[in-house]
Amino acid sequence: MYLSYEETKDIAYYMCDRTQRLTLPMLVNLLLDVSEKQSDSLERGEAYIRDRGLNWIILHYAFDIGRMPRLNERVYIETFATEYNKLFTYRTFIVRDSNRTELIKVETTFALLDSKKRKMARIPEDIVAPYKAEYSKRIRRNKKPDEVNSEEYNEKQYAVRYFDIDGNNHVNNSHYINWILDSLDSTFLLDHDITRGVITFNKEVSENQLVFSQSSIREEEGLNSDHIIKTEDTVHCSATFTWDKVKRRNMNGYDQ
Amino acid sequence: MYLSYEETKDIAYYMCDRTQRLTLPMLVNLLLDVSEKQSDSLERGEAYIRDRGLNWIILHYAFDIGRMPRLNERVYIETFATEYNKLFTYRTFIVRDSNRTELIKVETTFALLDSKKRKMARIPEDIVAPYKAEYSKRIRRNKKPDEVNSEEYNEKQYAVRYFDIDGNNHVNNSHYINWILDSLDSTFLLDHDITRGVITFNKEVSENQLVFSQSSIREEEGLNSDHIIKTEDTVHCSATFTWDKVKRRNMNGYDQ
Repeated sequence: MYLSYEETKDIAYYMCDRTQRLTLPMLVNLLLDVSEKQSDSLERGEAYIRDRGLNWIILHYAFDIGRMPRLNERVYIETFATEYNKLFTYRTFIVRDSNRTELIKVETTFALLDSKKRKMARIPEDIVAPYKAEYSKRIRRNKKPDEVNSEEYNEKQYAVRYFDIDGNNHVNNSHYINWILDSLDSTFLLDHDITRGVITFNKEVSENQLVFSQSSIREEEGLNSDHIIKTEDTVHCSATFTWDKVKRRNMNGYDQ
Repeated sequence: MYLSYEETKDIAYYMCDRTQRLTLPMLVNLLLDVSEKQSDSLERGEAYIRDRGLNWIILHYAFDIGRMPRLNERVYIETFATEYNKLFTYRTFIVRDSNRTELIKVETTFALLDSKKRKMARIPEDIVAPYKAEYSKRIRRNKKPDEVNSEEYNEKQYAVRYFDIDGNNHVNNSHYINWILDSLDSTFLLDHDITRGVITFNKEVSENQLVFSQSSIREEEGLNSDHIIKTEDTVHCSATFTWDKVKRRNMNGYDQ
């Protein structure tokens, strides 16, 4: 059995989009808040890791979304570390509604970054042990995003903002997801819900950089969007989402 | 005595900037979450107002900030409506720390917008009565922001993003504040804290608009920054903040 940790979250208006559903960027904020709280409870919080000259980064997300929580809904977010090896730890998040029905499952891959060398560090036993994940030599092959269609894509440009940088001195993950999704047409976003998705982070974006968010739509085993976040010559992040057409909305975009 | 409502909030990492302090945009999100919760508790929530073809807009904020809450700090946010007249209601927010010491006071002016006519509506008695604010014919003269120095100012440009639009179909207030502050140099933001501020909203920005955020610094009874958010020919929002130099930070920008 994994060492599980759970928190209750109430979905506030500032977490929601115009259809009064939790946004994907804010979902990720809530998930990472819960895993940070588990770390604090095990005395392995951000300060402990920072004092060792390290910080956690996330390399991969895999989302499986039954439905996004609604405004004012109370949800339960459970998280547990499942497995680790010398470089990676794997952590699962499950979001449930008030009947304890599973709404969302997210599987993530974390690694430790050496703050000075700016490269990945071996995971020290004292940092990982309290989470009671299983050690396994096996390094998982995470599902990769598909490539953006180089002949037909949307592109939008974003400057990193002061408040995009979080307490770890990184551009917070949620902003990459905002850049990724915002590159799609707003009518597409309003008419479709994400059912599955993968995001891979390759290289951090730093302050004062200008990023390009490219996306293309692909109909293949359903409706998919493929994405990259790039600067001039570097791909920082890539993603693929699978979408379902929203069946019924009333004029205001709210579910009926 | 006013009809007061209070909620407890724990400051999560996603609400904080790189110095692990609550950001002003996120402070405003938390305040409005608490006032929305008071409205829900009085059965005057967003759906009640929307069904009347109306929605609340905020015209003015006045901030008085002793200090911003820190990451993981627990704060108490109290709110109460103080006074109303035919067009405006006035609401105060007080943020206190775990010792019940006042950290922040914010005074706000709300009005009702007729969703179809896109203009201000008279405030119906049944909407305002449950808050037990005092009726007074007097219309307050809110402190106005100072003008941006037209000869020497910073300017940055922002496109409204899909997720900037909230469940009221408006650009959420917090994004205006993000645009306002992001136009200042990041070294200035890192080295200074806001002690006071006023923000005035004149006209909504809509989706697909491009806004210009202009700011200038003024030394006059302390250090001030003046701001406007404008589109081609319209000023949508203006603000003035007063700043204190942060005395001690360690290398990571954290308070010592």
